[in-house]
Amino acid sequence: MTAGVRAGTLLAGVPDAAAGERIVPLLAGPGGRIEQIVSAGQASPDGFWYDQDRAEFVLLLAGTAGLRIEGEPRTRELRAGDYVVLPAHCRHRVERTSAVPPAVWLAVHL
Amino acid sequence: MTAGVRAGTLLAGVPDAAAGERIVPLLAGPGGRIEQIVSAGQASPDGFWYDQDRAEFVLLLAGTAGLRIEGEPRTRELRAGDYVVLPAHCRHRVERTSAVPPAVWLAVHL
Repeated sequence: MTAGVRAGTLLAGVPDAAAGERIVPLLAGPGGRIEQIVSAGQASPDGFWYDQDRAEFVLLLAGTAGLRIEGEPRTRELRAGDYVVLPAHCRHRVERTSAVPPAVWLAVHL
Repeated sequence: MTAGVRAGTLLAGVPDAAAGERIVPLLAGPGGRIEQIVSAGQASPDGFWYDQDRAEFVLLLAGTAGLRIEGEPRTRELRAGDYVVLPAHCRHRVERTSAVPPAVWLAVHL
């Protein structure tokens, strides 16, 4: 392997999230960070909203999930391949995630 | 739709890349940029190496591809779900991409 090159897969050997959501850092730098998030039935706590300083690009790679954005009339239902771009401070929460298969997300904070 | 929120899918209605690689910008900011790249049989030109100022996270979402990194003895064969983190100025090239199904990449430059 060449110095500094890293590689892997996001769809096999996925961390077991049965006991709680798992976050795997993939790349971080001054400009932002990339992480894999694995959920297995978890949702954001009641009344909790994410409110982040950076824009977020979130892509569902496997499973299904429900994403709620504050001010929208209904939950967005996501399946593999679906992405959402959330501006900074766009309040949002995860209403549900599939347990089997687990929901595998790629999140990029820019 | 809430102001500034954008959404879509990367795995359906993929741009037709038969006539040439297609690059779809997804998010750009001072910290970096995210794009979808669709290839259908294309490869980097003979002797061409990418040499970029920023680190790149590249994830293959569909299809297969061969990624060559300078100094490595052989091409890395990638399939859906595989990612590679390339440090800034890590010279690399795409040796091949599948045409059917097309190779769909997510690239993040940080």
